[in-house]
Amino acid sequence: MSITFPRGFRAVAVEAAIKKPGRNDLAIIFSDVPAVAAGMFTTNLFAAAPVLYSREILAERDSVRAILVNAGNANAGTGDEGFQNTRKSAQAAAAALGVESADVLIASTGVIGQPLPMDRLLGGIDRAGRRIVAGESHGEEVARAILTTDTVEKVAERSVGAVRIGGIAKGAGMIHPNMATMLSFITTDAALSAAVLRPILRRAVESTFNAISVDNDMSTNDTVFLLANGQAGKTDPDAFEEALTALCRELAMKIVADGEGATKIVTIEVVHAVHDADARLAADAVATSMLVKTALFGNDPNWGRILAAVGRSGAEIDVGKVRIDLAGETVFIDGLPTGTFDPQRMKSREISILIDIGLGEGKRTLYTTDLTREYVSINADYTS
Amino acid sequence: MSITFPRGFRAVAVEAAIKKPGRNDLAIIFSDVPAVAAGMFTTNLFAAAPVLYSREILAERDSVRAILVNAGNANAGTGDEGFQNTRKSAQAAAAALGVESADVLIASTGVIGQPLPMDRLLGGIDRAGRRIVAGESHGEEVARAILTTDTVEKVAERSVGAVRIGGIAKGAGMIHPNMATMLSFITTDAALSAAVLRPILRRAVESTFNAISVDNDMSTNDTVFLLANGQAGKTDPDAFEEALTALCRELAMKIVADGEGATKIVTIEVVHAVHDADARLAADAVATSMLVKTALFGNDPNWGRILAAVGRSGAEIDVGKVRIDLAGETVFIDGLPTGTFDPQRMKSREISILIDIGLGEGKRTLYTTDLTREYVSINADYTS
Repeated sequence: MSITFPRGFRAVAVEAAIKKPGRNDLAIIFSDVPAVAAGMFTTNLFAAAPVLYSREILAERDSVRAILVNAGNANAGTGDEGFQNTRKSAQAAAAALGVESADVLIASTGVIGQPLPMDRLLGGIDRAGRRIVAGESHGEEVARAILTTDTVEKVAERSVGAVRIGGIAKGAGMIHPNMATMLSFITTDAALSAAVLRPILRRAVESTFNAISVDNDMSTNDTVFLLANGQAGKTDPDAFEEALTALCRELAMKIVADGEGATKIVTIEVVHAVHDADARLAADAVATSMLVKTALFGNDPNWGRILAAVGRSGAEIDVGKVRIDLAGETVFIDGLPTGTFDPQRMKSREISILIDIGLGEGKRTLYTTDLTREYVSINADYTS
Repeated sequence: MSITFPRGFRAVAVEAAIKKPGRNDLAIIFSDVPAVAAGMFTTNLFAAAPVLYSREILAERDSVRAILVNAGNANAGTGDEGFQNTRKSAQAAAAALGVESADVLIASTGVIGQPLPMDRLLGGIDRAGRRIVAGESHGEEVARAILTTDTVEKVAERSVGAVRIGGIAKGAGMIHPNMATMLSFITTDAALSAAVLRPILRRAVESTFNAISVDNDMSTNDTVFLLANGQAGKTDPDAFEEALTALCRELAMKIVADGEGATKIVTIEVVHAVHDADARLAADAVATSMLVKTALFGNDPNWGRILAAVGRSGAEIDVGKVRIDLAGETVFIDGLPTGTFDPQRMKSREISILIDIGLGEGKRTLYTTDLTREYVSINADYTS
């Protein structure tokens, strides 16, 4: 079901052999009627062609009909030719679907800096479009087609009264706040205007997709699209926002749980920083510390590395006021180790780290993983 | 020879069994006469007790007689008791050596957040001090005693006319600009005042020890001490600075080459950024990117990850003006991949990455390593 759970959506995936043959790697998500659209994108200055292109579409119009997505090639670092290839892809999808070119949003994920194989891509677009027009729909195939190094599909669904929301996501590495090599597509049959829908998506993403970190890299292609086609009629925006945020959190946590090589799910909560910006600095420093993350992998209660990361983060601290809890037990308080930690606690798959700065009201929660030999293996020969 | 290469220095190492028995882990470096002293320290706000203590000493006086160093325990995150233990250690060393307590600088490295084993530590200090007073000197033993996860000793020597400079260093992980879990001790028989010596050390450290990055962590204990005892008479400060900088660079590169699990030595040079601060942001982002570092380990010419790291770094860029050279060959220019890269180039042990931002005069060079399965293994069970 996934993105075809809400009424009035169809979706199919096909094999275009963009990187290598043997799997579906291209998909179209289609709304029977114009759907109000919202998008959130990477803040990376080397934003990929599909990001630049889709940003333009959403700046010009409130609603679209389709999302075209490919895995295997990010179409990033490919210059004007890459942008023109994105435009040609949208035109091909529009022709196959019988809609306007500007009705099609685009997202890509995969290797950076290689030209798209346009022959195979256009062939795949045509086949996918014709299957949609013929009435086919296989939402579950799309959740699989957008994956790269992910090991499992990421799907979530919610209902609010008559309104349904369906979402899928991919992303296992290059994951860092302000999104990652992460794609998520969410459909709903709620009837909400663009002016209402877009701020709701922005807020939902901030505390979910923008709060996860697998490694410290931010991709050129991160994209979240939300399409609302109104088929279920009007809905209460607050209730919708609550359901949407829960759905985004479920997808975000599934990305963390499937982080490249990860054996742990780690929640890092910074509280009582001088302000939120300081809390972010401290949480980021801990979440990206290779030493903290390797210690977590080794079930090593080396909380000194947490303390060292906070100390170099740039956040204002008073050493005597910092408290650190690891896996639910206080390990450092009043400037001193407690010395009572039970190392067995480190063996849990889910580990919480609480850092109480003790100075103000700033806070930030991040979700991350450990750093493993398997992460290194996965990323040491990604291109080949 | 190492730190006993300059005239008038003695040094010994002993086994104090601070973390575990079976190796020398405590050392004293001693000057026969008062030596003008300079120090550079971590900027981590959780600075360890020996850093806080030695900073105080150098703020109050220009010259000292000895450096006391231990491995196996960082005496960091240990509160006021940790500071008092450092003071007691200095007193014990002074008593054994027949000097004043304030004549002794202290440095520690090892695990964070555990109290020093004072009985064994004080016993070791006494034995080391008595061996110094008895006229013993084994500089080469000290280079080994300060190591933790390092695999080789790091020693460098220089001469400038009659003046000799000797240095040792340790540090293999928690290495990031503004120093790391890095200790370096440098002796010279040059005659230079504190007012001349201290800015010289600061400048030398900035482009050497402060330009290396193994992982993205900065330690609580980083310390560089330089003792100048004047036994070779007056020297030209400029010639001395040049020789000192070369010696610091040699030690810094030895630290990189011995980076935990490293198989590559990587030079990252950012040029023509809008200003130096932007060049630093870009160089830091590339040097700490787990994806760039794992690609280097895998001989994977995935320069797209370099581009993505620069794009998220916060440095001002114009995509069409950025040029990236990898291993001496241009891979990205005028907003496009060149498509000509020979992947065999990645197999070299030394890899250069040049990032030409094309906007101004800002520049920054960093030296780093790849990220390997071995790094993860070393750091996954450090405490145990």
